[in-house]
Amino acid sequence: MKIRVDVMLKTGVLDPQGAAVQHALGTMGFEGIQGIRQGKVIELDLAENDKAKACAQAKEMCEKLLANTVIESYKVEAL
Amino acid sequence: MKIRVDVMLKTGVLDPQGAAVQHALGTMGFEGIQGIRQGKVIELDLAENDKAKACAQAKEMCEKLLANTVIESYKVEAL
Repeated sequence: MKIRVDVMLKTGVLDPQGAAVQHALGTMGFEGIQGIRQGKVIELDLAENDKAKACAQAKEMCEKLLANTVIESYKVEAL
Repeated sequence: MKIRVDVMLKTGVLDPQGAAVQHALGTMGFEGIQGIRQGKVIELDLAENDKAKACAQAKEMCEKLLANTVIESYKVEAL
């Protein structure tokens, strides 16, 4: 089954990528941008068909590889 | 209002980042991974409070900066 994982920097952690995008959009004439945060989205296609088991497997992947849990938070969602 | 933009490589476009993650997870002992695609998620905080207008603004940002529409597709969603 398909699992979607969102990995974002935690609130309070400086996000230079988001700041760069915000600055670039500002110079292009876009107005009213109060903030931008950029993160990763990872779409997993797993053989496991049980939703709970697949989500548990994805969470383990996040803890071990996909997210740096010191500065990033993740969200696992079955599609 | 908050807008969420997902930018993914189009189907058929080689995703070396996703392939690297898939390989790494394989070497770590995770089994049953049939495919991984990695993309970007951008959370915009816009001053515009009208949903339709904010989404239209986000779409314009995607066309002009956030996505390379030759190889990437994007999805705009109001939160």
